[in-house]
Amino acid sequence: MSVNPLQRMLEKINEAGLWQGDILLKRNDYLKTEGTKDTRVYFIHQGSLRMFVAEEGEEHTIRFGYQGNLVAALDSFFSEKSSPLIIQALRKTRISFISKEMFSLFLNEDEENRNLWIQILQGLMVQQLEREVDLLTTSPAERYRRVFERSPHLFQKIPHRYIAAYLRMTPETLSRLQKS
Amino acid sequence: MSVNPLQRMLEKINEAGLWQGDILLKRNDYLKTEGTKDTRVYFIHQGSLRMFVAEEGEEHTIRFGYQGNLVAALDSFFSEKSSPLIIQALRKTRISFISKEMFSLFLNEDEENRNLWIQILQGLMVQQLEREVDLLTTSPAERYRRVFERSPHLFQKIPHRYIAAYLRMTPETLSRLQKS
Repeated sequence: MSVNPLQRMLEKINEAGLWQGDILLKRNDYLKTEGTKDTRVYFIHQGSLRMFVAEEGEEHTIRFGYQGNLVAALDSFFSEKSSPLIIQALRKTRISFISKEMFSLFLNEDEENRNLWIQILQGLMVQQLEREVDLLTTSPAERYRRVFERSPHLFQKIPHRYIAAYLRMTPETLSRLQKS
Repeated sequence: MSVNPLQRMLEKINEAGLWQGDILLKRNDYLKTEGTKDTRVYFIHQGSLRMFVAEEGEEHTIRFGYQGNLVAALDSFFSEKSSPLIIQALRKTRISFISKEMFSLFLNEDEENRNLWIQILQGLMVQQLEREVDLLTTSPAERYRRVFERSPHLFQKIPHRYIAAYLRMTPETLSRLQKS
């Protein structure tokens, strides 16, 4: 299939009018806080988000979301339990949401939707495996190269100090690697 | 659903007799080497495997597989391209395999199979997110605690020096944490 499965799924959710509400976040507002359950799926119309976990005063960045992305607190979404994940707006951000119940109805509705979801989950797994290798990669230059090749857009969308944290390097090291 | 979706899928593959062959590995034999494509799904009857990537002489352990597990080089399986993942036997290991083509036929065959696969993929995503948080966790004691709570069996099945590498600590540190 040549069509992006995520784009196709978004079109179908839009056409069916399944979005259940909108949320407007100001910069630094929290969409999800630590230890809460959140099983909604969000679509970002405008702005950007970061997802992170906090451990003994340190923040570990897990993932970013920006305009056009579908995001969710995947651990809580799948387990239906509370999770340590925190989601925060990096700038003024406008999102729509759909509940897990509604999303499940959408998946059960037709075969194509389930097949799209299988493709999306498989794509997420590949991303997670890439991220695991990123995190295990010792060289900062190599970590930068891997992420830049995979997600060049990230560098236009997300403030660089957050990308540096995601890459586990100082903003100065990131800046030096970008110039070299 | 209370039945483990992986167990249920295995039963159905067994009942349909879809396994296409067996492989017997000696300790240290490679099932997959770096830069190769491998889209087969493996079931471990006996023994254990580790999956790792090699980077500048360092080996980074990604995951283990042992008796009763279904394993695959997931990056290569999903992308259908060659991948850096290496799979090696940790002891004498007996596995069966099914090709991606056969597995896809199995998924397309009936609705339940696709739903089982969605549940398995979602479970894998939760595991990967847990692993990402593990890798970002600074404290060795906390990394040990997280993995021990999630996978107590691991410590009976896999030689401890490989678990130590997986936890990014020395075998001495792991041994100290296990006693405390």
